[in-house]
Amino acid sequence: MNYEYRNRRLCVEGVELSEIASQCGTPTYVYSAGMIRERYHAYANAFSGMPSRVCYAVKANSNLAVLAVLAKEGAGFDIVSGGELFRVLRAGGKASNTVFSGVGKTADEIRYAIEQGVHSFNCESYAEIEVLNRVAGETGKTASVALRVNPDVNPVTHEYISTGLKENKFGIDMSVIEQAYAHAASQQHLKVTGVSCHIGSQMLDSAPMVEAVERLLALALRLKASGLPIDHIDLGGGLGVKYQATEDTPSIHDAVASMRKVVEASGLIAMVEPGRSIVAESGVLLTKVLYRKNNGGKEFAIIDAAMNDLIRPSLYKAFHDVVPVIENDQPTMEVDLVGPVCESGDWIAKKRTLPTLESGDLLAVKTAGAYGFGMASNYNSRGRAAEVLVDGSTFKVVRERESWEDLIRGESA
Amino acid sequence: MNYEYRNRRLCVEGVELSEIASQCGTPTYVYSAGMIRERYHAYANAFSGMPSRVCYAVKANSNLAVLAVLAKEGAGFDIVSGGELFRVLRAGGKASNTVFSGVGKTADEIRYAIEQGVHSFNCESYAEIEVLNRVAGETGKTASVALRVNPDVNPVTHEYISTGLKENKFGIDMSVIEQAYAHAASQQHLKVTGVSCHIGSQMLDSAPMVEAVERLLALALRLKASGLPIDHIDLGGGLGVKYQATEDTPSIHDAVASMRKVVEASGLIAMVEPGRSIVAESGVLLTKVLYRKNNGGKEFAIIDAAMNDLIRPSLYKAFHDVVPVIENDQPTMEVDLVGPVCESGDWIAKKRTLPTLESGDLLAVKTAGAYGFGMASNYNSRGRAAEVLVDGSTFKVVRERESWEDLIRGESA
Repeated sequence: MNYEYRNRRLCVEGVELSEIASQCGTPTYVYSAGMIRERYHAYANAFSGMPSRVCYAVKANSNLAVLAVLAKEGAGFDIVSGGELFRVLRAGGKASNTVFSGVGKTADEIRYAIEQGVHSFNCESYAEIEVLNRVAGETGKTASVALRVNPDVNPVTHEYISTGLKENKFGIDMSVIEQAYAHAASQQHLKVTGVSCHIGSQMLDSAPMVEAVERLLALALRLKASGLPIDHIDLGGGLGVKYQATEDTPSIHDAVASMRKVVEASGLIAMVEPGRSIVAESGVLLTKVLYRKNNGGKEFAIIDAAMNDLIRPSLYKAFHDVVPVIENDQPTMEVDLVGPVCESGDWIAKKRTLPTLESGDLLAVKTAGAYGFGMASNYNSRGRAAEVLVDGSTFKVVRERESWEDLIRGESA
Repeated sequence: MNYEYRNRRLCVEGVELSEIASQCGTPTYVYSAGMIRERYHAYANAFSGMPSRVCYAVKANSNLAVLAVLAKEGAGFDIVSGGELFRVLRAGGKASNTVFSGVGKTADEIRYAIEQGVHSFNCESYAEIEVLNRVAGETGKTASVALRVNPDVNPVTHEYISTGLKENKFGIDMSVIEQAYAHAASQQHLKVTGVSCHIGSQMLDSAPMVEAVERLLALALRLKASGLPIDHIDLGGGLGVKYQATEDTPSIHDAVASMRKVVEASGLIAMVEPGRSIVAESGVLLTKVLYRKNNGGKEFAIIDAAMNDLIRPSLYKAFHDVVPVIENDQPTMEVDLVGPVCESGDWIAKKRTLPTLESGDLLAVKTAGAYGFGMASNYNSRGRAAEVLVDGSTFKVVRERESWEDLIRGESA
């Protein structure tokens, strides 16, 4: 299942994108429910026959309808805030199938998560251990805890890894992790049930993941041997997707298989926290050309999607492929696609070869299902885009376009 | 007027920031009405005795209460979207005192602006001239237009300039500007009344501004001599503020004086569009330490403000000074201040020397009144911060903290 042209019109599942643009306007995020299900099951199937939990990383795309699709398929969830748990529950997900990660959980968020009965906490510091224990005590419950290990996987050989190194804010150093576990295990209201790590994002090679898993498993077995009730090993997420044709990335099946090989014999429950690899390719950002412009010999198309809608190009210098929604036989041109925001950093794509664009032409910014809408802002007082979910031959608006009244909600002059 | 310690407590005007934190929670943006008025009048006074309009650039901080403060003082406004005009009108600003800039105005936005009676449009392309004329015709009105000139001021000597160069999306090339003016003047529903430019942002030297103004004035005089009804010259904005003690920036008075010298004799109305220099220093982002953490020998303080609240450090590698809200005699430490968002890019300040921090300590991220809240997102399903306006010895919440219900408004599973 994929985005493909039929009768020269770009379609996803049984729906033409031009039909969505015509009914819902632009800019609009479009997601394919079928593709999301397919990717989720690629994970679930790759683990079949061994105990596992696939916990979707909500931060990648937290739209209620996206979460509901995954909840119905039986997915678990990986959350990093109380707001994300609130979303999971509203979407029909189960707290008991949800793991709470993140370096800065507030006491209020922890209390809410314990009261709702989340599966476990991935705990990131000594200070958080104390707060978790105190709040669990106040609620009269025991909190299940894994400590997030910072496995310090070599960054020189694995350039995309950015969160699993020493000297960043995440996790607890491998060199002191056993003391930290002993400390956690000594807390009255905590039960230490797992080990966890997450070494980075958008990884295009499973070698560093396997390296991290090996270190994590060795730790889990040592902790178990020392008597701790370790029952799960949380491998985090981070599998990349192909933003450009030149990129190569392992399939979900192959990536899981290489980790499964390491873990399976241990009998531990394997948990994973994929986000981007489940939703990124399911989504496009539909946009329309407002103006063509030539400046200093350079061609620009000013489109109605901007950095407030999709900040990845500005923030990460990220590449998103952009394609016409309706194919034509125009000669091609080289063009920068820029938004209406008053900032030079407001660009979506640079130096792209596209059929000669005219005002009103529709474009699809691809691989926009992850870290797209979820990072959108109202910068320049622009209402956030609509979101649409396609399922088979139908589609529906799953988040309405923001109005000007929405922009000022809660404000008083 | 400034932020200063009294009895070891950081105060703005007659209010202690710790009092605001205690009543409103954190993270919270705080703005000083008095400082905003002071900066606005520095501009207005620097132009006194000659025809001028000071049009505050709404994108810098578009909170209704901030706009209302400026509207009451008689400020005009520079807007870049229909949403910003909506805000100006709601805040009591006048459309007739508002200029509409930006490269991607939609036909609907243009219609709304003409119907409301904005002063003029700063028009950025041939294509936009066509749409402006068509929409003006449809509304039965004449639209006043300035073309935005791209003065191509040398970037090598003026490193902060980024919008006034050839080969970016803004403005119209100086080399073809007279044809563009002739084209605009030939449109039935347009009246060409001005010239405009905006060469960049956060400029710490007025030399490039003066250079641009000289080019702009020469153009205005040529156009006037050719018979066009040019009555104003819009110099844009871009004056920088001191984010760090080591930075040096001309005062508002001196920056205006150097431009005024060029323009005054022409008899044209001088317009300016300052944003950052009016609001940046008026604001702080109040935040609380959640956890202390040592990783690999490095000290972190995880604070409750994150990149979703203030993206400037992540997006621009921007420096914001951070100071304690209550001074103490603790020995100092070197520390990275990072937020709870699950991303290595989520940091507010690195390698800062601060009194040893503990959980619960309050900090003020300074110079946060511009491009702070206006660029905030709900990333990681975090509700946006509250905003508070201080005026004299009182303060009030001018935008409520977002709730979890606010996060999902307009969504349906």
